[in-house]
Order: sequence, then structure tokens, then C-alpha cells
Amino acid sequence: MLERIRIVLIGTSHPGNIGGTARAMHNMGLADLALVAPRCEPLTADTVSRASGADALVHAARTVETLEEAVADCTLVVGASARSRTLPWPMITPRALGERLPEELAAADGRVALVFGREDSGLTNAELQRCHAHVHIPTNPDFSSLNLAAAVQVLAYECRLTWMAHGEAPAEKDDAQPLASHEELEHYFTHLERTLIAIGFHDPAQPRQLMARLRRFTLRARPERMELNILRGILSNTEKLARPEQPATGERASRGPEGD
Amino acid sequence: MLERIRIVLIGTSHPGNIGGTARAMHNMGLADLALVAPRCEPLTADTVSRASGADALVHAARTVETLEEAVADCTLVVGASARSRTLPWPMITPRALGERLPEELAAADGRVALVFGREDSGLTNAELQRCHAHVHIPTNPDFSSLNLAAAVQVLAYECRLTWMAHGEAPAEKDDAQPLASHEELEHYFTHLERTLIAIGFHDPAQPRQLMARLRRFTLRARPERMELNILRGILSNTEKLARPEQPATGERASRGPEGD
Repeated sequence: MLERIRIVLIGTSHPGNIGGTARAMHNMGLADLALVAPRCEPLTADTVSRASGADALVHAARTVETLEEAVADCTLVVGASARSRTLPWPMITPRALGERLPEELAAADGRVALVFGREDSGLTNAELQRCHAHVHIPTNPDFSSLNLAAAVQVLAYECRLTWMAHGEAPAEKDDAQPLASHEELEHYFTHLERTLIAIGFHDPAQPRQLMARLRRFTLRARPERMELNILRGILSNTEKLARPEQPATGERASRGPEGD
Repeated sequence: MLERIRIVLIGTSHPGNIGGTARAMHNMGLADLALVAPRCEPLTADTVSRASGADALVHAARTVETLEEAVADCTLVVGASARSRTLPWPMITPRALGERLPEELAAADGRVALVFGREDSGLTNAELQRCHAHVHIPTNPDFSSLNLAAAVQVLAYECRLTWMAHGEAPAEKDDAQPLASHEELEHYFTHLERTLIAIGFHDPAQPRQLMARLRRFTLRARPERMELNILRGILSNTEKLARPEQPATGERASRGPEGD
């Protein structure tokens, strides 16, 4: 999916922004960059510095004279627009854009262009009117002009989220440890109360909701089994100290986390 | 809501990234910036150029020496992390982070810190373990390192989307107890470690990730201040028992042999 999304920069003035765009694209898994009539040398030391290893995208970028050439093969063209124009256009949010991509790209020849304008003046009305829709990144109305590469970053991020949600993405490995069972938790609470009595912190005759509070706190954390073992080890050591004359009473008096 | 979200940059090397961060923040309506031990002069021509009109945020930024100072008053601390670490920590997506904000900031003194590490090496394990959760911006696994300002841009964008969806005044939770602040939590962890040493459960020379595990467990529960007071009371009683020759240890207990 991501290989069929093209980023189009029109009339860019600062090579650093082209480099920053390449980095943002590559970070999010996009690769197709087109430059329309750039107002600077696209590949400079600034480009390479800001690209931070992604300058291959600039080398591979197609440079053309007009928006039409850049998006000729695209089935959906969306222009990034900071302002509402005199002639209202279908306006979507970055999130809605992302959600729309799977359907747009379901067709065998589906291809989407996301078009970004000049640093100082954005897209012209003529350019905006060549777009199927406009996408507006929500901003502080008092300070609404995003850096070009930052705007690309936000839209590319939404593209990646959609791609991850809709497949092709490897499922993230769940490295969850087994949670403590109800029974293990109850043994822990019994052990805890006994220990708190032994150290003189808790008086069952005047409970003051102490155990209830400790239960609520502990259960909220959803302890893993290994964590509970650590806590019980602490209790056993504490108990030993409080009742030196008795053998350790915990079911598992030996200390310790089992390493990783 | 947005005014109670702090962006924390640790050990930043490039003034341009501080400027880019300020611009990204101001674009999204954030204003609270803290710099921890920057490795560059924060305010240079590069800063001003990349800030593009938002350099007031850098002027107003607080510069401190440690993460603890930067987030002492925060009730939720989230670290931006590119990689999974040896000890997995609660990991959330940027979107889930955004969705969580209204509830987090509903408490009267709720304050959220989003913490970003060094350009070259990110956050240290010690820094990551001071966070309640880690947020990972999904990236191309072959090219996963986002530009610092771009990472701030993505999270700030999610903050703004949430703010737009939820309106300005979050409902006060009627039964909300104040959560423990970062500073209170750190005092607790210091007290806990000292006590575990005193009872012979913990050997700092062979830490085996014990404190990291206890941190992760405790932070996951998001302790209320009152709960933390209970836990510290337990520790004080335990310490008294372990060191009967010493006077009872209070809030500012005498330091253990290892210090903290």
C-alpha cells in the first residue's frame, strides 16, 4: 500500500526541507517523491544532513515542471492546505485521509498523491483546484504554518497507521509475562497482612481500610506472576526480621526475582 | 488542557532541533518546554531560524540539570522510546496517549510530561525507568530514527486532536484522589531501596533489575498520594525493625550505607 502513495513538493525553496521530507517519508515507509519546479538545488549538503541517511529518496525523486506531470498516474490527488479558500473544496482531516486510503488503493491501479506547496505561499488556487480534496492539519490559529517536512511527517504518519491497521504489517510481538492468578494474589494478600501485623503497622482490630487500599492499589497494577514473587520475597525477609525466633513462614521464603 | 502538557528534551545536541521543537509545539498549541542538560547552546541563529517565529517558547523554556527537576510536579511522565528494552515497560501508541490525556488531566493538579531523549542515543534505561509508560511512534523498522522535532510534531499533533475532540474544560472527577507526583514517587523509591537493603533483600552490587521491576510495577498502578503514604509508613516500620539501634526514620530518613 505505502509504495503507491506519492509525496509531491511544489516550488520548494529550502534544500533542508527536501532532506527533512525524505527522512520523514523513509521513517514512515514511503519512498515515492516528486519535486515540481523546485526553487532550489534539491541535493545539497543541507539536504543530505537533514535526510540523515534517507537521501536515496532524493536521488530517486522525479523532478518535473508541472503538477500535472507529477500526478498524471494518480487516482486520488489530495492537496495540503492551511487555509480555507474562497471556493470551498472537499476538506478532510489527516485521519480521515488515512482511513480512506485502503479503499482508494484497493483498485489494481490505485495511486494517491499528497501535494505540498511552497514554504511561503502554499499551493495556488489553480493547484488546489486540481486536487480531489484538501487535507488540513489542525493547528493553533495564531501560528498555523507548519514546517514543510513536519507537515509531510504528520500525513505520512497517518498513512503508516492505516497501513499497520489494514494488513501487510507484521503483528507486533506481544512479550507479555503471565499475570498472577486470583489465587496467587490472595496468597499474597494473606502474606502481606500477616507481615504488616508482625511489623506493628497493621492492627486487625482497627483496620481503617488499610488492606482494602493496598488491594485496590495492587490490583490496579495487574501484577505479573514474577512481580508477585518479588513482593512475596520481600515479605518473607521482613517477616524473618520481625520474628527472628520463628522459621520463615512464607510459602516461598527464598528471595528473589528469577533473572531474565 | 494543552497548557498542562510539558515537552521535555534531554541532552539535545542541535539548536535547530530545539527551534524545530518550539515551532511544532506552538503550531499545535503547546507552550511548556523544559530542557534537561542540553549539549548545545539552546538559543542560536539556527534555533531562531527553525523556530520560524516560535522562539519565544525557547526564551521561556526552563533549563535544568536533571530529568527529576524537569518533571517533579508531573503526575504522568511518558518517555518517547524507539526500541524495546531488556525490561519491557508499559508501551502505548501516540494515539492511545492522546486518548488518555483528558482523564489524566481531569485531576486538579494533573500535569503530563512527554520526554524526548538525545538525537544519537535516545533516553537511557535509568531515564526510561522513571517514566510511567513509553510511547513508540510506529516507524519503518529499516529506518526507525525520527528527527527529534518530527517526533515532537507527531505527539503534539495527537495532543491537539484530543484537545479538539474533548473541548477545553475537562470534567473534574468527583471522586478523584490526588495522584502522587513524580517527586513523591522518587522519594518513595529511594526509601524502598534503602529499606530493602536494610532487610537484606537487595544487594546494590547485584541489582538483578530488582528496583526496575518494582518501579515498573508501582508506576503501572499510578499510586495516589495517600496510597504512597501508606507504603512509606510500612517502609518506616520495617526500617525501624531492621535497625533498632537508630531512631525512627521519618520523611527524611538517615541514609543507608549505600546512600541513594
